[in-house]
Amino acid sequence: MQSIQALTHPKSVAVIGASNDKTRIGGRPVHYLVEGGFGGPIYPINPSRDEVQGLKAYPSVEDVPDAVDCAIIATPTHAVLPAIESCARKGVRAVVIFSAGLAEMGAEGQRVQDEILAVARAHDMRILGPNCLGMFNTAANSYLTFSGTYEDVVGTSGRIGLVSQSGGYAGELVKQAKRIGLTFGSWITTGNEADVEAGEIIAAYAQDPNIDVILAYLESARNKDTLVAGLEAARLARKPVIVLKVGRSEQGALAAAAHTASLAGADAVYDAVFARYGAYRARSTEEMLDLAYACLQGVYPQGKRLVVLTASGGIGVQAADFAQDEGLDVAPLPEDVRAEIVKLVPNAGTHNPVDLTGALAHDPELYARGLELALGSGQFDMAYINIGVLAGMAYAAPRLLDSLTPVAARYPAVPKIVAVMASPEIVSAYEAGGYLSFGEPARALRALAGLYHFTQAWARPAPAPAAVAASMPVIPARKAFSEAEAKAFVAAAGVRVPEEHLVQDAAGALAAAAQIGGPVAIKVVSADLLHKSDVGGVALDVAIADAGQALDTMRAAVQGHAPNARIEGYLVTPMIRGGTECFVGAQQDPVFGTSVTFGLGGVAVELYRDVATRVAPIDRGEALELIDATRASALLKGYRGRPKADVAALADAIVHIVALAEANRDTVDTIEINPLLVFDEGKGVIALDAVIAPKADVAP
Amino acid sequence: MQSIQALTHPKSVAVIGASNDKTRIGGRPVHYLVEGGFGGPIYPINPSRDEVQGLKAYPSVEDVPDAVDCAIIATPTHAVLPAIESCARKGVRAVVIFSAGLAEMGAEGQRVQDEILAVARAHDMRILGPNCLGMFNTAANSYLTFSGTYEDVVGTSGRIGLVSQSGGYAGELVKQAKRIGLTFGSWITTGNEADVEAGEIIAAYAQDPNIDVILAYLESARNKDTLVAGLEAARLARKPVIVLKVGRSEQGALAAAAHTASLAGADAVYDAVFARYGAYRARSTEEMLDLAYACLQGVYPQGKRLVVLTASGGIGVQAADFAQDEGLDVAPLPEDVRAEIVKLVPNAGTHNPVDLTGALAHDPELYARGLELALGSGQFDMAYINIGVLAGMAYAAPRLLDSLTPVAARYPAVPKIVAVMASPEIVSAYEAGGYLSFGEPARALRALAGLYHFTQAWARPAPAPAAVAASMPVIPARKAFSEAEAKAFVAAAGVRVPEEHLVQDAAGALAAAAQIGGPVAIKVVSADLLHKSDVGGVALDVAIADAGQALDTMRAAVQGHAPNARIEGYLVTPMIRGGTECFVGAQQDPVFGTSVTFGLGGVAVELYRDVATRVAPIDRGEALELIDATRASALLKGYRGRPKADVAALADAIVHIVALAEANRDTVDTIEINPLLVFDEGKGVIALDAVIAPKADVAP
Repeated sequence: MQSIQALTHPKSVAVIGASNDKTRIGGRPVHYLVEGGFGGPIYPINPSRDEVQGLKAYPSVEDVPDAVDCAIIATPTHAVLPAIESCARKGVRAVVIFSAGLAEMGAEGQRVQDEILAVARAHDMRILGPNCLGMFNTAANSYLTFSGTYEDVVGTSGRIGLVSQSGGYAGELVKQAKRIGLTFGSWITTGNEADVEAGEIIAAYAQDPNIDVILAYLESARNKDTLVAGLEAARLARKPVIVLKVGRSEQGALAAAAHTASLAGADAVYDAVFARYGAYRARSTEEMLDLAYACLQGVYPQGKRLVVLTASGGIGVQAADFAQDEGLDVAPLPEDVRAEIVKLVPNAGTHNPVDLTGALAHDPELYARGLELALGSGQFDMAYINIGVLAGMAYAAPRLLDSLTPVAARYPAVPKIVAVMASPEIVSAYEAGGYLSFGEPARALRALAGLYHFTQAWARPAPAPAAVAASMPVIPARKAFSEAEAKAFVAAAGVRVPEEHLVQDAAGALAAAAQIGGPVAIKVVSADLLHKSDVGGVALDVAIADAGQALDTMRAAVQGHAPNARIEGYLVTPMIRGGTECFVGAQQDPVFGTSVTFGLGGVAVELYRDVATRVAPIDRGEALELIDATRASALLKGYRGRPKADVAALADAIVHIVALAEANRDTVDTIEINPLLVFDEGKGVIALDAVIAPKADVAP
Repeated sequence: MQSIQALTHPKSVAVIGASNDKTRIGGRPVHYLVEGGFGGPIYPINPSRDEVQGLKAYPSVEDVPDAVDCAIIATPTHAVLPAIESCARKGVRAVVIFSAGLAEMGAEGQRVQDEILAVARAHDMRILGPNCLGMFNTAANSYLTFSGTYEDVVGTSGRIGLVSQSGGYAGELVKQAKRIGLTFGSWITTGNEADVEAGEIIAAYAQDPNIDVILAYLESARNKDTLVAGLEAARLARKPVIVLKVGRSEQGALAAAAHTASLAGADAVYDAVFARYGAYRARSTEEMLDLAYACLQGVYPQGKRLVVLTASGGIGVQAADFAQDEGLDVAPLPEDVRAEIVKLVPNAGTHNPVDLTGALAHDPELYARGLELALGSGQFDMAYINIGVLAGMAYAAPRLLDSLTPVAARYPAVPKIVAVMASPEIVSAYEAGGYLSFGEPARALRALAGLYHFTQAWARPAPAPAAVAASMPVIPARKAFSEAEAKAFVAAAGVRVPEEHLVQDAAGALAAAAQIGGPVAIKVVSADLLHKSDVGGVALDVAIADAGQALDTMRAAVQGHAPNARIEGYLVTPMIRGGTECFVGAQQDPVFGTSVTFGLGGVAVELYRDVATRVAPIDRGEALELIDATRASALLKGYRGRPKADVAALADAIVHIVALAEANRDTVDTIEINPLLVFDEGKGVIALDAVIAPKADVAP
């Protein structure tokens, strides 16, 4: 497929539907391109005018004498398809379609959009939009947009690249960013994403030497591969990607048909993808812009050890609170540094946070001396210096700046944030001197943690290539599977299941229990019953002699609760003691394919939603990471004197279950093992129950 | 005790240590009082000048011919005590001590401060400070401070009252608040709090007709009663108290000697006090000021049903995400309202969030029409309207304001927030028209949730008076208590404990088990062993015949793990099955007295810290609230088909345990019941284990 070079760096631009009126949708891009200093030819296309805004106009793009690299389509909806056909004949490499009224309006619009896409694909022509505000690239003086944000960015040279699935949001964001001094060098709205997707833009930014920081506003991804490729390209290029993905609360709102669905939820899968490919998920616009500002300085910490300098103990304690919230390490100062600081300020608080006290009012250079001592120790990866109003006082301001700037220069690899209550000029002087400036300490420390996020994300090895699920059993297309059937597939996939006897009556139960030779568990078998214990369909720890009676009692209870359930029989299994109950669920996501959710059984999963999600493929190392990502995993690792559990076997079981789901992704929606019992180290795991839910549209 | 009227509304002010230099600590308050228009007499006290800043000066406060209501002491540390004595002889009613170098410097400073306090108390004179920046009250033109914040507030008439234990922070806050247009009508820094405490200031603000919103910056409270009285006075006066209490992370840092200490922690006790008396605890300065701004409008929602209006689906989803974070209810619009909106905008998203689409660009009045329809339904308690850049566009700005202002006037009881990207003048016009303005939706919705916090806090009945713990057993001063001793006290307090047999050897265990007549539990008894299971000191579900062998095995295990532990014997008890394990710990806090922490046993408490804390006294209703405040309490209430637990008996047990702790607060630090087993409804509770930890300083 053609690259999107003709969009990001067009050699020539035609504007189809060009207007002489500079305020109209078809007039604005002509005006912006001319006034913005676009270097290549601009061809207004307008069948009823010879000239548009002083440029020669052509009746059709096909009438342009020279090659047209990129065309803007700013026509009524019905004229889009003819325009695309015209562009195709002309050999245009890319089009930006402003026009709306297509897929977003329903089936008929979708049909026309599909036709447009087919024409473009047939001629190797790329499409941005339709239904978008277009894009700009200030480094190329290219303004392929009708958005008034042009006015805010023309003549600037920001190093942030934005891709947004919402044009409205993207416009607001330019204004909001400008208020805090941030500008976008490139700004691309993708609209309906008939062709070019957000992920492809991220990949382009990863290669763009004018872009250092990538922001993405996502409502939903269309394809896993595009997004993953973009994120991974940026990760390898060590460019931060900060994502604002909306729809977190969908998770809560999801109609929880299958158990796994309600636990994983589409949103958790996004989190899994972002985590794996190193993107930072911001919760709000403010958080996104704060971190973008910090990233623009290009200084990422080597670790998470933070030194805090203040003139007030209380402000230091606050900073320590926020540092703890963000997982930063307010490590104690080395003893020799503490002694040096006491020499400077006898009653200083030297533990960290360092309280240099009101002595600073008389001797503002103390900040610089304290910072030099702390950073000189080599024990800190980042610094937060709360200066406050002193920074704006006439007598102190130059002394602070003159003393602090050389310290910054000596420790260029350490991100340093100051909190200063001063004029914009003074703030700019700190920034020029190598400091970041934040007003609210909570936001400052969140930004430092965000910088450290990228250090970690970039240090990770690339994800392993897809594991080959060569020997996985084939699960046929069926409406339902009983527990016994589900367990058979799980066993065939390499996960141990208990010895089982399918019986039909009390006599059979008695015989099976005798053969097992010890206490047994009995469960009803029915593809109609997902939660057997809710209907009295589970009996535990049944003595051999009681097995027959237990079966009869169960039959009566199930028939009472669920008279219509078809009962295939009763499973008699050894009563298994010990082990830790875990939950493993593999599920198909419409965009991201197979995902897997893990948690410890019982309240950990149900009450605390202490689960973690990853996307396939997954190897043993990632399975171990998945386990570690739950708080409850502490219980598997020798918690409070318990024996360690067989985490290695658990990880292998997860890998096998994911492989089984991946191999059968066309027929199976969910494979859920609950509980998967994990025994002590070296003793393996066993799947006590399994549910396989076919895809809804699978015909038997 | 004298009221603090002479501080907040002084009739006359003497400045001891007055300087002719307006920039010095002793010169500034004279200058500020004069220039600020203080209405009463100002008496500079300076033994070496006849005149200070144009005012007649006196050698001593005792030389002032008329009565002196309030005196500022701005002298070197050594001169403070003589000055106080002089004030006492003169009959001064209150003093503000700027001078530092007292209790904050250690034992000797504390001694002098105590002496100063003794003089003041003997003469019924109140002290603000020492080691403070003083205070101001703009309504009284009273500036008893040397803080340069005077310059920021003189001539203003803000309706926010601040009390701060940090002068430095208070100064920064004035600047930070001013940047977003907020000013303080009263501003009081309490320094070392030798006498006047933050809580007393809060109580004064509760009565001050010029103060509508109270902010408090706390590092630690000195006395429970003062703080509680202040918070409760404000609650009854329906004035919001927004607290920034630093030191959340102390909780993590606490050396967790006793189990309860590490779970409750001092900080959790503050949360309990704030929750009980209705204060809102802000996490950051930004959050505090955001909510103060919202509170100043004085409109508190009746409920938490929120309607969201936007021009973009994506922004609406974001708002829904934040609303869910804050516990607000984005309830669906009534069907008839949805139909009306579709009449206005055929392709509008009408579910809530309401997406009025790009149609707003052509018809900005749609916001007002949509808002009128939504609020007119009576189904919403608050509104969030995201207008964005449209609000600043010349053609749309007046149309938006003209249409939205009348809607606000028709629904004055509903808080309404707009997000507008526009000039400060336009923002002010929205505010004048009855709207609040926030840039970041996350902060807007947090503020709405904060307003609703106060609605709920003010609707609560006043806390019940202290329950009388009349018949509680007296726990003597001892170094340690065995489990059996602890259980005996718990039983005497009215909480059921199991039948128990204390035995010394295998034969005794066998006999006890035979007497019990069923499977037993055996536990080692030793005051030296807090966590018995960690040393092999617990055996469960032991058959009668195995009881002797189990005791011998236990003896060997305990001696192996803890050879120095003194073993008093072994408890043999019936093996109790069923029930839900809970944790109840009552503990003494140095400031707040008896607190109680509750959680469900096992991982809920240990791993998820799913505990709640309240302060004594506590009645059954509050005990039920305490239980409800944990997520795990769902397990007690018929979770997923489980039988309901005896929550009423659990609440009574909590009340009894708190009463036992309260009655023995002088000798006992901690009483911990873990587990307290809760059986099915009507079947009560039983304390399976109990630990009583004496106070460290209690001599046996």
